[in-house]
Amino acid sequence: MGDNRKARVIFQPSGRRGEVSKGTNIIEASRQLGVDIETLCGEKKVCGKCKVRIEEGTFEKFGIVSSRKNVGPWQKEEEKFITPEQREAGYRLGCAAEIQGDLLVFVPEESRAGKQVVSKAAREIEIRWNPAVRLYTVTLSPPTFEDPLGDFERMTQGLHKEYGLENLRIDWLTLRSLPGTIREGDWTVTVAVWMDKEIIKLWPGKVEDYYGMAIDVGTTTVAAYLCNMRTMEVLDTVSMMNPQCKYGEDVMSRITYHMQNPGGLERMSDDLIEGLNDLVKRACEGTCPPKVKTRDKNGKVVKDEEGNAILEEAPEEGKTYLRLQPSDIVDLTLGGNTAMHHILLKLDPQYVGLAPFPPVIHRSLDIKARDMGVHINRSSYLFIMPNEAGFVGADNVCVLVCEKPHKSEKLQLIIDIGTNGELVLGNNKKLISSSCATGPALEGAQLAFGMRAAPGAIERIKIDPETHEVDYKVIGREAWRSYSKPEEMQTKGICGSGILDVLAELYRSGVIEKSGRFSKNQKSNRFRKNPDNSRQKEFVIAWANETSIGKDVVITQKDIRQIQLAKGALYTGCKLMMRRMSIESVDTIKIAGAFGTHVAKEKALIMGLFPDCDLENVQSVGNAAGDGARVVLLDRDMREEANWISRNVEYIELTVEKDFERQFMEAMQIPHMTDKFPHLEGLVPKEVLEQ
Amino acid sequence: MGDNRKARVIFQPSGRRGEVSKGTNIIEASRQLGVDIETLCGEKKVCGKCKVRIEEGTFEKFGIVSSRKNVGPWQKEEEKFITPEQREAGYRLGCAAEIQGDLLVFVPEESRAGKQVVSKAAREIEIRWNPAVRLYTVTLSPPTFEDPLGDFERMTQGLHKEYGLENLRIDWLTLRSLPGTIREGDWTVTVAVWMDKEIIKLWPGKVEDYYGMAIDVGTTTVAAYLCNMRTMEVLDTVSMMNPQCKYGEDVMSRITYHMQNPGGLERMSDDLIEGLNDLVKRACEGTCPPKVKTRDKNGKVVKDEEGNAILEEAPEEGKTYLRLQPSDIVDLTLGGNTAMHHILLKLDPQYVGLAPFPPVIHRSLDIKARDMGVHINRSSYLFIMPNEAGFVGADNVCVLVCEKPHKSEKLQLIIDIGTNGELVLGNNKKLISSSCATGPALEGAQLAFGMRAAPGAIERIKIDPETHEVDYKVIGREAWRSYSKPEEMQTKGICGSGILDVLAELYRSGVIEKSGRFSKNQKSNRFRKNPDNSRQKEFVIAWANETSIGKDVVITQKDIRQIQLAKGALYTGCKLMMRRMSIESVDTIKIAGAFGTHVAKEKALIMGLFPDCDLENVQSVGNAAGDGARVVLLDRDMREEANWISRNVEYIELTVEKDFERQFMEAMQIPHMTDKFPHLEGLVPKEVLEQ
Repeated sequence: MGDNRKARVIFQPSGRRGEVSKGTNIIEASRQLGVDIETLCGEKKVCGKCKVRIEEGTFEKFGIVSSRKNVGPWQKEEEKFITPEQREAGYRLGCAAEIQGDLLVFVPEESRAGKQVVSKAAREIEIRWNPAVRLYTVTLSPPTFEDPLGDFERMTQGLHKEYGLENLRIDWLTLRSLPGTIREGDWTVTVAVWMDKEIIKLWPGKVEDYYGMAIDVGTTTVAAYLCNMRTMEVLDTVSMMNPQCKYGEDVMSRITYHMQNPGGLERMSDDLIEGLNDLVKRACEGTCPPKVKTRDKNGKVVKDEEGNAILEEAPEEGKTYLRLQPSDIVDLTLGGNTAMHHILLKLDPQYVGLAPFPPVIHRSLDIKARDMGVHINRSSYLFIMPNEAGFVGADNVCVLVCEKPHKSEKLQLIIDIGTNGELVLGNNKKLISSSCATGPALEGAQLAFGMRAAPGAIERIKIDPETHEVDYKVIGREAWRSYSKPEEMQTKGICGSGILDVLAELYRSGVIEKSGRFSKNQKSNRFRKNPDNSRQKEFVIAWANETSIGKDVVITQKDIRQIQLAKGALYTGCKLMMRRMSIESVDTIKIAGAFGTHVAKEKALIMGLFPDCDLENVQSVGNAAGDGARVVLLDRDMREEANWISRNVEYIELTVEKDFERQFMEAMQIPHMTDKFPHLEGLVPKEVLEQ
Repeated sequence: MGDNRKARVIFQPSGRRGEVSKGTNIIEASRQLGVDIETLCGEKKVCGKCKVRIEEGTFEKFGIVSSRKNVGPWQKEEEKFITPEQREAGYRLGCAAEIQGDLLVFVPEESRAGKQVVSKAAREIEIRWNPAVRLYTVTLSPPTFEDPLGDFERMTQGLHKEYGLENLRIDWLTLRSLPGTIREGDWTVTVAVWMDKEIIKLWPGKVEDYYGMAIDVGTTTVAAYLCNMRTMEVLDTVSMMNPQCKYGEDVMSRITYHMQNPGGLERMSDDLIEGLNDLVKRACEGTCPPKVKTRDKNGKVVKDEEGNAILEEAPEEGKTYLRLQPSDIVDLTLGGNTAMHHILLKLDPQYVGLAPFPPVIHRSLDIKARDMGVHINRSSYLFIMPNEAGFVGADNVCVLVCEKPHKSEKLQLIIDIGTNGELVLGNNKKLISSSCATGPALEGAQLAFGMRAAPGAIERIKIDPETHEVDYKVIGREAWRSYSKPEEMQTKGICGSGILDVLAELYRSGVIEKSGRFSKNQKSNRFRKNPDNSRQKEFVIAWANETSIGKDVVITQKDIRQIQLAKGALYTGCKLMMRRMSIESVDTIKIAGAFGTHVAKEKALIMGLFPDCDLENVQSVGNAAGDGARVVLLDRDMREEANWISRNVEYIELTVEKDFERQFMEAMQIPHMTDKFPHLEGLVPKEVLEQ
């Protein structure tokens, strides 16, 4: 803090943070802090892969004020890769930008080296083609004195005759384009109809392909899927940090920001909407040929009157481009938790944060994009997913729309682990939901060496019960530590899935007890007191010489407590819900979210994240929230299904359940009773279980 | 033109125009030109009744450029009556404002001395109370942990339980006010529901009265009726000149303006919408206490920092005020002819003006007021009346909604005379419509001494067949000319209804022949050649000494031709429609519009405006267009009825009918064959009919 030769740097969306010496460039800092940014050219400023965005604002949580002024001067090499608009938005090349003061650096999806590992890429899911917006083409006869019928009625008559469409209305703005479009197409016109009710776009002549977008608004990350609505193909996935992060990292701090700042709600909403517009634009740009600077015969860059380089398209040979514009997007679906939902819609979120947490609205909304300032086709609607309850939002509905527990006789437990844990339990007879405050520990955040799942992150580990020696594997390297030279590991930290693995092994090998405390019976020098804080005990996972950060990667007693709190909250939730349903076991457990994709399920069972279950019946279902937004984009019947779900899942407020505190205290312990966890047998040595 | 001591002045909406000496004040000019402006105080600048508005712009039709710079300096007496906003908008006191150059002066309804005569005041009509927007009040129990239902669902559940309302949706902007309003009213809330479908406004607690507006958008005049939606009472009627007049006086010239000026359509629409907002504001202001300048103890005007007088309310004792705001208007209906409809909605009107004249849309539209920039309750819809055809618009549908010819077995002929003549013929079996280009002659415009129906206008006349001596009566004076001293008459011109009377008498007395030409057999010195143009013949109706304008009031051969063209067009239309229906006579003739209110029906029959009919069955139905807009405001079933009418009245393009030209030539003649006009007998002397 006091050292003015140092600057504090936070990378988003990974959340990695620390101090670096001023003068360090952003790529170097990202290495020191365990963030992976693509750098093909080795910082020679010629590949342009390491684009990052400097965020401006006061980030109270981190105690920093980030400003573009805290970065060194713009370098002319950057011009080649960063458009004037991007520069305006704060983009820099990581290798060219020197850190001069505190910074919050956002690493866009495309610049993340490890992106394939945790990208919110679209999953292959089965969706029925039944979109809310459909196209119809009709050819009409022009008006005559005998038949002077107006343009709109002429068109709807044709649509009725050919497609049986009835009682169609038309958005005023689309109506305005009707006389011109119908004549431009020489009386052949293609019509986009929303919900068989309203005409929202017109094209002259025949058109077949059309486009939509599904957006998952997370508290931290916003992911958008651009879809061809005819083929259902996902054309592109783009994501960004939720621009509201600067007002508070979690839901409650944003609600507080709203309550303490007049106009704060509008500001947070407008920032998000601006971000959504940017996402839409980026997704569309991905379908257009790249642009390069126009050069004259001598290779000199041609500039306009204001001295800006004139850009020209540089299509790759043999490649076809869709050349989409935001106005080509005719449908857009949005899902998020209840607080994100309310803030986006500028609905007062204060009561969502106040017992008994009633949301302003549960059911889905169709809102004209233009009303909200979202720049897609101007007559189109946004479909806003319904909310279940104050703390189980539209994002959970998205999960249920995908997983359909209400369609099955099997008792399912669905766990969506994000910053909050959301739980759904039941089957086609009854469904209940609740939320539990897991905190971000299971995502690897707020731990001493937690990091996101990216190269260098420890994802698997083994600890020898006899010697307490450690073997591990990092993301991005096939060979385990024991088959590598130390310097080959380039270890950086522990990711969310790795942390659970670590804890399970620590327990199985006897390094920690069932209470989570370090055992008194330590067998190696890996166990020690923290050199800077003798009251903090820690266990070394990787020695400094195995890392790329020059420090021992350790797990501390505090880290273990964080995980215990998280897993305790989750487990208590599951158990109280099962008690409500009067059941002892479930048939299937599904884990949604990036966490579920990467965690080894037996380790989750060992750690007691969820009730005992045959591991064969534990499944990971990926980013089901984003998938759900795609499902409702492409199958309109699922919109009503989503509303049905949101009203028929009974929300249970766990904290007011009888026994909650005692149950929670118990659940903090690591499982050890084989009567309660028969499936633990074989996973954990008997002597550990019986200790 | 050449005399630079003179200025050209046009008064609207009357259309009276002429040259006056520079230095004349506006009231004096209005007297010279036969326009009636209220002046209670006798131009002492103390009553404030003579407010007028100076319009700015180029008025090509009149060949003038009107500017506020062409009026003498602002006088401090005006301050007392004209608010800073009004001053900004161009308002002046007529008695204080000196004419220094060409001017277009708009005389607002409230300043018109003759307003009772032709005001578009609301007529007593029978309307069923069945509004599109209704209020419901519910009291709810607050949320608890056992019942944490969201605000919207809580409210709609209450509305369902108490009123049976189902599947309600809510406008996003209204939703935003929900959590605050519902808590402000301590869980009692009043809800405005549109069409049993959508919640568009909320009030805390119980509310009973609510307000709507019906607007008739005429080519020249826009009239608005402010209604209490609960009691159906008309609270106020306000009107203005259509601000589009500066782009062209008639429909075709505005269409032309659009086609020749990029952005012209938007400009015309925006001007009208600005005018509508002003009308709404004025109507609301009429429900608030008047404002006067705040004075200190010494009677000195208190001013704000910028030197503007601070206004305070001066409520009349014992009077209660509604204190309405534009946001209190929850429903608004609009009717107008097809071109006005298209221009208001920014729909390309060029095809309406081009054979075969198809409109962009027939059916009614519900458009969010905010989308069109109309400032009423921000979640409310505008209801836009449907169009029948390119030249028979929503205004005609308004007439039919009132007169309901489709509900009767009787064959009705409905004639709406404005700048265009609109005709409807039929009964509950079949209805046909057409339009005919009557021009404005029947309204008294474009005639040598035509004027609007206001004091000083000749409205009745008798001509002695023996001497061709004239007796007449003017509006505003009971006694006929023959019972008055010449100087008592203060005659100014001839109004629309008077012109028909004049022509009928000229014919009946033998001054003109059935062909419309002046007879060779003249019996008085009233017939003469125009002193300035010897080729133009004219007949003096009032000698200069009987007038307030110091000139003989005459009717010229050209005037007679104008009327003949108009009545020929109308009559041909009626006859061709009857031929289409294969009928020889009709049961009832209804005349809509101000014209019909004041014309003596036997004179209309003598002149052959419409086919022969028993005079008992000829009725005037007043401003049925405005009434129709009120009907659909208060009875929503009539909205669908209006759509039914618009699609079930068959439009006939008269000009392409077989025989049109021959019929038209014949119809120019004044009726003279008693076999075709049996009801003429007794009205016109046999010798005239047989001449």
